[in-house]
Amino acid sequence: MEPTVAPPAVTFEINPTDYQHWKLTVDGHVATLAMDVREDAGLRPHDYKLKLNSYDLGVDIELADILQRLRFEHPEVHAVVLTSLKPRIFCAGANIFMLGSSSHAFKVNFCKFTNETRLGMEDMSANSGIKFLAAVNGICAGGGYELALACDEILLVDDGSASVGLPETPLLGVLPGTGGLTRVVDKRKVRRDLADDFSTLTEGVRGKRAVEGRFVDAVFPTSKFQEGVARRAQELAAKSDRPASGPGITLGPLSPSVDGDTIQYKYVKGAIDRAKRTCELTVSAPDSPQPASADAYVAAGDSSWAVRAFREFDDALLRLRLNEPEIGTVIVRAVGDPEAVIAVDQVLHDDAAHWAVREITGLIRRTLKRMDLTSRSFFALIEPGNAFAGTLFELVLAADRAYMIDHPDEPNSIRLSVMNGGAYPMSNGLTRLQVRFLGEPDSIDKALTHDGPFDAQAALEAGLVFSAPDDIDWDDEVRMAIEARAAFSPDALTGMEANLRFAGPETMETKIFGRLTAWQNWIFQRPNAVGEKGALMTYGREGRPTFDFKRT
Amino acid sequence: MEPTVAPPAVTFEINPTDYQHWKLTVDGHVATLAMDVREDAGLRPHDYKLKLNSYDLGVDIELADILQRLRFEHPEVHAVVLTSLKPRIFCAGANIFMLGSSSHAFKVNFCKFTNETRLGMEDMSANSGIKFLAAVNGICAGGGYELALACDEILLVDDGSASVGLPETPLLGVLPGTGGLTRVVDKRKVRRDLADDFSTLTEGVRGKRAVEGRFVDAVFPTSKFQEGVARRAQELAAKSDRPASGPGITLGPLSPSVDGDTIQYKYVKGAIDRAKRTCELTVSAPDSPQPASADAYVAAGDSSWAVRAFREFDDALLRLRLNEPEIGTVIVRAVGDPEAVIAVDQVLHDDAAHWAVREITGLIRRTLKRMDLTSRSFFALIEPGNAFAGTLFELVLAADRAYMIDHPDEPNSIRLSVMNGGAYPMSNGLTRLQVRFLGEPDSIDKALTHDGPFDAQAALEAGLVFSAPDDIDWDDEVRMAIEARAAFSPDALTGMEANLRFAGPETMETKIFGRLTAWQNWIFQRPNAVGEKGALMTYGREGRPTFDFKRT
Repeated sequence: MEPTVAPPAVTFEINPTDYQHWKLTVDGHVATLAMDVREDAGLRPHDYKLKLNSYDLGVDIELADILQRLRFEHPEVHAVVLTSLKPRIFCAGANIFMLGSSSHAFKVNFCKFTNETRLGMEDMSANSGIKFLAAVNGICAGGGYELALACDEILLVDDGSASVGLPETPLLGVLPGTGGLTRVVDKRKVRRDLADDFSTLTEGVRGKRAVEGRFVDAVFPTSKFQEGVARRAQELAAKSDRPASGPGITLGPLSPSVDGDTIQYKYVKGAIDRAKRTCELTVSAPDSPQPASADAYVAAGDSSWAVRAFREFDDALLRLRLNEPEIGTVIVRAVGDPEAVIAVDQVLHDDAAHWAVREITGLIRRTLKRMDLTSRSFFALIEPGNAFAGTLFELVLAADRAYMIDHPDEPNSIRLSVMNGGAYPMSNGLTRLQVRFLGEPDSIDKALTHDGPFDAQAALEAGLVFSAPDDIDWDDEVRMAIEARAAFSPDALTGMEANLRFAGPETMETKIFGRLTAWQNWIFQRPNAVGEKGALMTYGREGRPTFDFKRT
Repeated sequence: MEPTVAPPAVTFEINPTDYQHWKLTVDGHVATLAMDVREDAGLRPHDYKLKLNSYDLGVDIELADILQRLRFEHPEVHAVVLTSLKPRIFCAGANIFMLGSSSHAFKVNFCKFTNETRLGMEDMSANSGIKFLAAVNGICAGGGYELALACDEILLVDDGSASVGLPETPLLGVLPGTGGLTRVVDKRKVRRDLADDFSTLTEGVRGKRAVEGRFVDAVFPTSKFQEGVARRAQELAAKSDRPASGPGITLGPLSPSVDGDTIQYKYVKGAIDRAKRTCELTVSAPDSPQPASADAYVAAGDSSWAVRAFREFDDALLRLRLNEPEIGTVIVRAVGDPEAVIAVDQVLHDDAAHWAVREITGLIRRTLKRMDLTSRSFFALIEPGNAFAGTLFELVLAADRAYMIDHPDEPNSIRLSVMNGGAYPMSNGLTRLQVRFLGEPDSIDKALTHDGPFDAQAALEAGLVFSAPDDIDWDDEVRMAIEARAAFSPDALTGMEANLRFAGPETMETKIFGRLTAWQNWIFQRPNAVGEKGALMTYGREGRPTFDFKRT
């Protein structure tokens, strides 16, 4: 039953000159980001047309790239107006024919990426001082409304036709899976009965009714819409603490070299072993002097290690997710001089309030979250010569397990920095150390205030690594752990890791990935959605869906 | 691929003389609840044998019944020791052959019920003053360990063989879905890497290692085990604020009369319309004087309205879930004298600290939670003569929508009581009013302090009902809403409701039903688990499972 169209290998880097679906204009402190999707420029143009500003992964990759550039390249931008260039259409949501013809794994990964991008907008509002205003100038349905929901405020034109809605359940038999249900009741705090009604309407709501239900913040007649949007955008921009002007940090291409199953960036290397279904992902510490201040970071542009290494790591994770579904286990290593990482950390900590440092830390924070949310098993291997220190030690904390060799002759140590104390919260709002030590909170401070590096025994005693075999046992223990992992059901591992990684509180963000996404993934497998007569498959074709009405 | 064995219609009432799988003995303030599952007494004895204290729904129905009787019939019981009468076996968990041969919907509902029962044990510990001690006297695997995890403490015999473990992922390709993963990291706060390792072991952990990982609280050598258990049980019992002795409230049979598609209890009536796929569930208010004090409640035994009506409502919900999967919409009505409900509420409020009142309120609270977690759409219909007041108004708040007729001639009103202010928190720890008014918290107090009943317009303005059509529109509006609901994908509705009903914070309880269960339901559909060569289907048979190793 599952569609067998192989998705094309996806790359996530894009040059602004190649944008096809979005127009960015900057006017003073306000940027306008307008959606104008090219129908014939989908990732699989023969399978679907991107009508009515519907989107596929390619459209969203552009959006994510633009957001990243706004953060780094445009410090003068304090507010973003999200709108559409199509008449009477804001955005029709994810393209149904794309979804219907995609594999289950692709659907799930597509939704994960789009969720991360929308959460990234909220992260910009909370952490970068860039506010978002949705200027909904036409029909705004499903994923279109979910995009608006990710904005700080939603303004709707009252022209008798423009509407917001979540018609997935009545039209397609699936959920609004890009945070829609969660944001309606948790972010906009719509009453549950109104949300229930809203989520079963095919036509959405318009005008005053949309305001009364809290679905949008305000409506304007057509004649006053542009003025209303402009005024509110200025007000939002005025709240920002971003600098009045640049220079920013221009993000050049990463240009990794790909050779067979190896991808080599400047600081990150990925090497796939298809027989073992593993990928070795190795991060190098800085190998040259790094900026000593926030201003020096701005001057260094995109060449600093912190910016470069984590852009690379992020890109590698995304390629792995989308293009290498059978590679189930990721072996993480860090190599080089740990003191060089600690030195970087000190600058990031000392100049934390500077806009550029804030963005760099944010990039690292979001990349680490991407790792937490990647449904692959991560094993960190800590060997002599490792650079797992401070920020790079977060990779160990994000891993499902860490093995550290306890070698009698070769010194092998790890170290923490001030950055492990709070700079990189997980989606649930806690640091990785806090989650790790939920049952022994004293261990957090003990680890953070520990004097100097930890050798393998000290790391084991401090609870910072899973196992510390000696040099005689090392090869066998690590090999057996990796082999055992590869033999388990990949689905059970996905579910197990999604539960064990996120102990402690839940937030709107984790609810989107935990509660909402898990249900959506379930529905994305049900014959009522993806069967031959399922709602997702029959949409737009002849005939109505046929449901098995048994409730589960 | 889905097994087509029709599950037998299940009844949830059971008489203690008919227990087959559990032995309850009471000695002073300590009860011992010993599992001794009869292999040949499963619900489908021809399809599977309940070996090694593995369980099916029938075993769990007995357990739930015993727990309910401990609450009501045994006020003198202050602590419960959960153990096994089988040598060297505590409990092997849910029966694999039962799971493998059950439909998806049955698996999901089975897990939901077992989860509710285990959460009910934690509810007893938190609210009834009855503590649980797991005395693990043998192999304790999967659902067996999950049962132990639901106890306040776990003691393990150190005999070289007894162990605790969650082998679902390595052995069966599914999750420990009865709260195991969540409780390991959230309740016992096991470090995530240790939990990861633990959840991939087929053989579990024993002795000191089990204590060090926080998987159990203590181990005892065989010779000291009974004494250690008895001592700790006494210590736990000493913490209770339950009365020293009875009398309790004996729970007699509900004995509903079933006539075709109608089930009639004393205060609850259920009537199924198969063509519309609806069930009308009507609760009657008290029709006779009710106990005026806690002591009078004890004297009244199981005949009081509060005890009887909610036992009946709970039973009706459970039958609906398991036996009537195609009935997607439940129409909830309450009839009779609303003042009679308000009078009951006043006594429950005034004597809230009394053990018996605490149990009655607890029964209502758990029944309402069962409704929140029932994957059917609930529409409350509020018509002249309705008894939606106070405690019964919680049924309106628990419904997905409430329609209230605004009749020009026939008075129609609802009213709140002090019991809507905090007596019945949802699984997420908030009251239904708090969740409803997350976006307008002032409305909570306004509703609670409102003087007298609300007519339809007042109820609509207060945000307490979804819609208040007049008598001319009523029939059409309600009919169309019910018809529309019946036409939607049942899976999308399940996912939608699971997201919209639980705005606000998450707790360990909601994580079990949201995050863990949603993932488990997903896995329960994957070919890697339930396909012909899936791990759940090949277990115990010849051959190893064959996995599609693509990660999702």
